[in-house]
Amino acid sequence: MTAPDHGARAPRSGSTRRQFLLGGAVAGVGAAAAVGADTALNAAAQEAPPAPPHGEQTVPFHGQHQAGIDTPAQAHGFFVALDLHDTTDRADLTRMMRILTDDAARLTQGAPALADSEPELAASPARLTVTFGFGPRFVERAGGTRPDWLGPLPEFGIDRLEPGLGDGDLLLQVAADDPLTVAHASRMLLKDTRSFASVRWTQQGFRRAHGTVAPGTTMRNLFGQVDGTTNPAPGTADFDRVVWATGGWLAGGTGMVVRRIHMNLDKWDGLDRGGREQSVGRYLAGGAPLTGTDEFDEPDFEATTAIGFPVIPEFSHLRRARSENPDERIFRRAYNYDDGGAGAEVSDAGLIFVSFQADVDRQFVPLQRRLDQLDLLNEWTVPIGSAVFAIPPGCREGGFIGESLLT
Amino acid sequence: MTAPDHGARAPRSGSTRRQFLLGGAVAGVGAAAAVGADTALNAAAQEAPPAPPHGEQTVPFHGQHQAGIDTPAQAHGFFVALDLHDTTDRADLTRMMRILTDDAARLTQGAPALADSEPELAASPARLTVTFGFGPRFVERAGGTRPDWLGPLPEFGIDRLEPGLGDGDLLLQVAADDPLTVAHASRMLLKDTRSFASVRWTQQGFRRAHGTVAPGTTMRNLFGQVDGTTNPAPGTADFDRVVWATGGWLAGGTGMVVRRIHMNLDKWDGLDRGGREQSVGRYLAGGAPLTGTDEFDEPDFEATTAIGFPVIPEFSHLRRARSENPDERIFRRAYNYDDGGAGAEVSDAGLIFVSFQADVDRQFVPLQRRLDQLDLLNEWTVPIGSAVFAIPPGCREGGFIGESLLT
Repeated sequence: MTAPDHGARAPRSGSTRRQFLLGGAVAGVGAAAAVGADTALNAAAQEAPPAPPHGEQTVPFHGQHQAGIDTPAQAHGFFVALDLHDTTDRADLTRMMRILTDDAARLTQGAPALADSEPELAASPARLTVTFGFGPRFVERAGGTRPDWLGPLPEFGIDRLEPGLGDGDLLLQVAADDPLTVAHASRMLLKDTRSFASVRWTQQGFRRAHGTVAPGTTMRNLFGQVDGTTNPAPGTADFDRVVWATGGWLAGGTGMVVRRIHMNLDKWDGLDRGGREQSVGRYLAGGAPLTGTDEFDEPDFEATTAIGFPVIPEFSHLRRARSENPDERIFRRAYNYDDGGAGAEVSDAGLIFVSFQADVDRQFVPLQRRLDQLDLLNEWTVPIGSAVFAIPPGCREGGFIGESLLT
Repeated sequence: MTAPDHGARAPRSGSTRRQFLLGGAVAGVGAAAAVGADTALNAAAQEAPPAPPHGEQTVPFHGQHQAGIDTPAQAHGFFVALDLHDTTDRADLTRMMRILTDDAARLTQGAPALADSEPELAASPARLTVTFGFGPRFVERAGGTRPDWLGPLPEFGIDRLEPGLGDGDLLLQVAADDPLTVAHASRMLLKDTRSFASVRWTQQGFRRAHGTVAPGTTMRNLFGQVDGTTNPAPGTADFDRVVWATGGWLAGGTGMVVRRIHMNLDKWDGLDRGGREQSVGRYLAGGAPLTGTDEFDEPDFEATTAIGFPVIPEFSHLRRARSENPDERIFRRAYNYDDGGAGAEVSDAGLIFVSFQADVDRQFVPLQRRLDQLDLLNEWTVPIGSAVFAIPPGCREGGFIGESLLT
């Protein structure tokens, strides 16, 4: 139950009451000895001081922006899109968003929802965030101005979209470092939507578990590629420009694209390591561009091989995803999915591509169009689900998500 | 890459090279200061010293028993059952088990499988274990003696079994504290089964993430109940007697029951807290029996209320699951599942019940029969999948799982 940080621009980071208590106790018993040991421990293992169970960590709910966007991505993400009932009117939308906001404000801070049927399952928030998004019909029914980009994306040649995996009126992104927390919070929230909406689709995603690898490691997808290296960094002016919308009821909010990308892992297996690195434009081992040695090296698109071919191929994902136009940038926050195989197929897996950008048409669409036209990765990936949502700004304590649209 | 611990009886626990190095460094720099601070830290937070990323932790693969049974349960469990091709003969079974054993021995120690297509995804084993089980047809085709209990369980009145969720010839239980590790290892293993078998069913399960709560905390299921309190403790003579088979090719192995139990969470919501505690026979908050104050207190089945009713009701799960017969005991190692809701159903969730016992007919069946006849929890749960497997013993380095049956 930390105080709201409305207006804070810094990225959200986890904190716990016990970390605070722990710090105090160490100082009281013998700060000098503790510091000495701490230095030794850090020198040996490059670790932070011992942490309490990370289940206690919380991310503030209230603020200028919704949590779950600039929050360092949690290990588990559950995405659910709802269709509004035909009878759900503007007053109902307000009622629903007040209830859902109250649920999310409690659950994210480790408190049970009102009338929580399993309060014990709410006690370990594990950096739980709940992020709400509105589809075009939600905005229309609320009587608000629909952003030009809010609606289905233009058709891309590579798409094989399944209607049951796309669109929707209301999106919930429920993310935490613990899967039981995600399951419980999702159910509490969905129970409270039942009078107003029904479930259209759900998607379960995962990244590395909390603490598996060093913090700040770029995630890998199921192709083994590092994924998200060129993301703008939360807390920078660059991030703010890419992500946050500035006008109208969406000011302080953003645009969200969710695309389910099936990966044909069996076909991918037919490609050797050199071929894989050419298709991406990066080395698989460390993620460095083929012209560099470190993951974060700037790629040199002019470099050529001895026989005059570009070192980073024209058809590589890295080159096609880059633009000269500084407007055509997005912030990615993807999850892997794996639904297991069946029969002779040993996997049904891929990527839940998630990106946030202030203007989907101006930032995401041109980029996706370039990839649609020529990106060698298209050989092994098929978009099967696609949805766009307007993510309203955050709210102060006592307010509710969507109030700039609904009041 | 630790040495095999063939013959060790103690339960397996994770260990890493870095933990060892860390201990050494602290001693070298200033053991006294470190111990002082350590005491202070422990007094404040009851925590162990800082750990390296837990992705590095390994569980030995080789040994008298297979890993993944007495191993403290990892956060993620993937269960897959395969049907053998009609053409797969005894020699093929040996070939397949040699390959799968080699894959598992490498992957569990953080090394890529042979011809691993994404070696980077093998680098964080996170206590990965791979446990193999044989269905009746596997044993028959191997020409071995089928244990009497190896086959479908007797029909229970509460069952609503779906054939696509039960039985199978070969079981893989792939478990780790990291979901990406589980996904990669499962795919590597399944690729190597393709010439011999096809996927019959898969189930994804989860418990609390590594480090979410204090180690040793009994898991909670999605009803919010503590689940597994009365389990025999690995490493004790009690555990050995309950779990390990002693005769024939199965000596050092065990019997495994996997049942998918759908939980009707929406209906469960209609029950108040008192009713829930009566149905289980335990307090929800701490898991103590209704006659006690601590989770591990012995229940007093003789205790009565002021008006003469038993404090722990006759129909409670706790009472029905207990037996006077010391033979009727099992070791539980369950996982939760949550496949998300659809339409008006806000959840499709439940429990992947997993138990290990030396003799399924003698230990599990009488217990399940008592629960089938009278257990209030049956009101809110429906078994929809059921399978029984013989888990062969472990193997030495250079050997393979199943060799006592196949050689």
